Amino acid sequence: MGRITRDFAVTRVNVEADGTWSTDTRADTVAGEEPLELQVNGTTLTTTMRTPGHDIELIHGFLHGEGLIQGKADVAEARYCSGTDASGQNTYNLLEVELAHGVATPGPESVRAVTTTSACGVCGSSSIEQIMGKQTHPIKPIELDPRVVISLPEKLRAGQKAFRRTGGIHAAGAFTLEGEPVVIREDIGRHNAADKVIGSLLLADRLPAEDLILVMSSRASFELVQKAVMAGFPALVAVSAASSLAVDLAREAGMALTGFTRDQRFNLYSGALKPAPQATLSAPR
Amino acid sequence: MGRITRDFAVTRVNVEADGTWSTDTRADTVAGEEPLELQVNGTTLTTTMRTPGHDIELIHGFLHGEGLIQGKADVAEARYCSGTDASGQNTYNLLEVELAHGVATPGPESVRAVTTTSACGVCGSSSIEQIMGKQTHPIKPIELDPRVVISLPEKLRAGQKAFRRTGGIHAAGAFTLEGEPVVIREDIGRHNAADKVIGSLLLADRLPAEDLILVMSSRASFELVQKAVMAGFPALVAVSAASSLAVDLAREAGMALTGFTRDQRFNLYSGALKPAPQATLSAPR
Repeated sequence: MGRITRDFAVTRVNVEADGTWSTDTRADTVAGEEPLELQVNGTTLTTTMRTPGHDIELIHGFLHGEGLIQGKADVAEARYCSGTDASGQNTYNLLEVELAHGVATPGPESVRAVTTTSACGVCGSSSIEQIMGKQTHPIKPIELDPRVVISLPEKLRAGQKAFRRTGGIHAAGAFTLEGEPVVIREDIGRHNAADKVIGSLLLADRLPAEDLILVMSSRASFELVQKAVMAGFPALVAVSAASSLAVDLAREAGMALTGFTRDQRFNLYSGALKPAPQATLSAPR
Repeated sequence: MGRITRDFAVTRVNVEADGTWSTDTRADTVAGEEPLELQVNGTTLTTTMRTPGHDIELIHGFLHGEGLIQGKADVAEARYCSGTDASGQNTYNLLEVELAHGVATPGPESVRAVTTTSACGVCGSSSIEQIMGKQTHPIKPIELDPRVVISLPEKLRAGQKAFRRTGGIHAAGAFTLEGEPVVIREDIGRHNAADKVIGSLLLADRLPAEDLILVMSSRASFELVQKAVMAGFPALVAVSAASSLAVDLAREAGMALTGFTRDQRFNLYSGALKPAPQATLSAPR
């Protein structure tokens, strides 16, 4: 059964005023994220990344928001797929809905994603395998400099023209390993902001981005790590939290991932740091 | 041409310690949000809500992240649709991409959304018309009590179990007009959290939610206002910013919409307030 939260061993990094840093590895609780596939009358309608739990409510709300059902009587049955995935687990990530007699089956115009899945639907590890299979530039791991990491959110914010006017727009930026901005883009959707940065690098023939850090004003979800991995970034720095599947994918891909990068601190969910110049230090894993 | 930001007349509401409130209507700058339709080799691959600007980068980054192109040589041509929409405008919301010879056309497994559109693609007003056409319960407008509004974010936060453990998960909640919680749900995706709340109300036969307020820990995007409108909520209270198309849809639907609902203040983007018991007051529009 999917989990609402998951615990990871995470390195907390604290940079001192003198430019040294200390680290402390401990368990950190992260919001759960797993794919949920929704099949309606036998056809996959959508796959969404969600936090497991209240899935029956989720799919009723989704179908209502799309105008596909009006009330609960329009759903004859909603059940988790009863079989198992390739590894013999029931992932509880596939919900099968049968609409009531007389309720129109959603047409192709309603279908959001048609993904070939195993018998009992998608799971986190199959999502990761899919990305790793598409990846054409394996990531070359780097050692992050904590002093650079903590400087990046403010540099990103400084490059956000629309944020200053609206107070509410995400940004993505590509920075050198020394913390110099290369390209910064804004969008109401954080995934779009990342796409604009990556597209800009692609058009400048700068992919794979093996000497650049992707910085996000937002949380780090699976889909953002996917974009970073596909573009070959060796590191993703997020201002806010990381999700469980984001951590899993970053570790699998060998990409450094930080979260809660604020003030003089951050959490290192994946990857390695440069050796500290001095100060107390417990080695990151 | 789409705009990165838009200005709206917005009522700023400030609640005093004695329970009175003052209002001030002025121009407020909001992040632009419009649909972008991407056609590849003549077939619509996806429609995303984005902030206009850097669209060519956006679609290159999107195609690369999906593993559909490896570099810029894989795109033979990328251009805005040169025609006009039904109202005679070029919306610059449809990008047509021709892949280079030898690059595989994305199969149906890559298609995210197939929406029938007018000749030159979607635009904000067509997105709004589509929602208004699907809506089965017209919203019954209410007058918001500012004292209730400012109390809601803290009550939502108090109901977030997973947030306390992770520091990074969104929440949606349905509250009575007096500010009592009815159902609170969490999810890594704010749209999923809203779907869980609305699905819960649907399963309890409590839709349309004409006597409830939807409260979101996040920003208010078009898609969240869509979900609220479809469920019949007369008000949506967002802790963070609203997008331009979210404001447009809320106004069209007659739904109250607040943003930056923090401390003792909020912005009223749409809808009306109860008359203030006293204090200086310039009437909200």
